[in-house]
Amino acid sequence: MDTPQSKNPFLPNPSQNPTLNYRRRQTLYLNGDPARSLYLVQDGLIRITRMTPEGRTLTVRHVVPGDFFGEDALSDHERWEAAEALTSARIEAIDPERIEPDHLIRITRSLSEQMRRLMDYGYHLQTGDLRTRVARYLLALAETPLASADESGHVKVAATHELIAEGTASTRESVSKIITELRQEGAIETGYRSLTLLDPEALADVAEGF
Amino acid sequence: MDTPQSKNPFLPNPSQNPTLNYRRRQTLYLNGDPARSLYLVQDGLIRITRMTPEGRTLTVRHVVPGDFFGEDALSDHERWEAAEALTSARIEAIDPERIEPDHLIRITRSLSEQMRRLMDYGYHLQTGDLRTRVARYLLALAETPLASADESGHVKVAATHELIAEGTASTRESVSKIITELRQEGAIETGYRSLTLLDPEALADVAEGF
Repeated sequence: MDTPQSKNPFLPNPSQNPTLNYRRRQTLYLNGDPARSLYLVQDGLIRITRMTPEGRTLTVRHVVPGDFFGEDALSDHERWEAAEALTSARIEAIDPERIEPDHLIRITRSLSEQMRRLMDYGYHLQTGDLRTRVARYLLALAETPLASADESGHVKVAATHELIAEGTASTRESVSKIITELRQEGAIETGYRSLTLLDPEALADVAEGF
Repeated sequence: MDTPQSKNPFLPNPSQNPTLNYRRRQTLYLNGDPARSLYLVQDGLIRITRMTPEGRTLTVRHVVPGDFFGEDALSDHERWEAAEALTSARIEAIDPERIEPDHLIRITRSLSEQMRRLMDYGYHLQTGDLRTRVARYLLALAETPLASADESGHVKVAATHELIAEGTASTRESVSKIITELRQEGAIETGYRSLTLLDPEALADVAEGF
C-alpha cells in the first residue's frame, strides 16, 4: 500500500506521489491497520465500511474521484474503518508529513464537501420507507463510477442486492423484495450483479415518496 | 485561538475574531442564509439539522466545543443546513478569507474528527432497534454540554422526546413509549424537558442490544 509505484515511469502521476491501482472489490485497508497515508481518488468508487457486532457490513461513506480520504492519517496511527474499491480504482497516496499549504486547502474543501454528502447520507438513511431509500440509493449510485451506459443507452449500475442493503440500513432479503417490485413495475431490469434503470423518472418519483 | 492567551488577559478571545453568544434553542442560521463565516465552538452544543419535505426536523450532525462548523463558507455562498444552539453557546466567527496556514491544519483535523463522528452517527442510525438507538443516543448526549450532574450526582440530560426522535430516525410517539419502558425498568428518571440517567450501566447494556 505504501510502496512508491511512482518510480515506475509508465505511470503518469505529475504530483510525484505514489499511485496505487486496485481491482473491483479489493480491500484497501482494514479497521486497525496502520494509518500512514491519506489518499486522493483519481478514478473509481471507494466505500468506507463498518462492521456491526453481528458481522453485518454497513456502508458509512462513499468516496468518488476528486475526494480525499484516509484523513485519519492526519491525527491517528490506526484506521478506524475499512476501505474497499467498489470498481477498479486509481488512487494517489499522500504522506501526511509532506502536505503543502495549497494542498491543505484542497483537502479541507474536499472534507467539507464530503461532510455535506455524509449529512445527505444520514438524511437519506433517516427518511422514507425502504422502497423510497432503495430508489434514492440507486439514483445516487447512478451518478458514481459504478454506473455505465448499456447497449440501449440505459444506465446500468453494478450493484448487488447486498450492496444496496448495506447502503440503505436494511437487509438483503428486504431489498430483494423491493427490487422485484420495481422490476415488475418496469422501473428497472435486473442482471447479473447489476441493475438497469429503465425508467429513471418513475424511480425518481419513488425516491420522493410518491 | 493560536495566539497565546497571555498576550491579553482581559480579552476572552485572543484570536481577535468576533465572539458570538447564543441562547439555548436559538437558531444560528437557516438553510439558504448567506455563508460568510466559519465557526469554532468555544462553549455549548450546536446541532445541524435538515427538514424533510413533510416538515420533520432531522439532526444530521452534532457540534461540540473545539469543533469547527459552517465550513460550507469555504466553498459556497449559501448555507445548506440549519444550525441551532441546543445549550447556551459561545462561538468564534472566522472570516474564510483570513485563515492562516496553521489554522487550516486545525480546521482539517477538526473536520477529519467530525467526519468520523458523522460515520459513527450513520452507523448508529443503521444499527439496532429503536430501544437500542434511544439508549445509545442518551449515552452519547450524556457526553455533551446538554448533560449536567443533578443533586444526587446522576447525569441529567436536557433533552425532550422530540429531540431524541430527531436524532434516532424515529418519531416522538415511538420515543415516548421507549422512554416509559426505560423509566419503568429504573434505568432513567424523567423530568421537565430532561432525563436523568439513574443506571447508566443498564442503559449501556440496552445500547449494546442486550
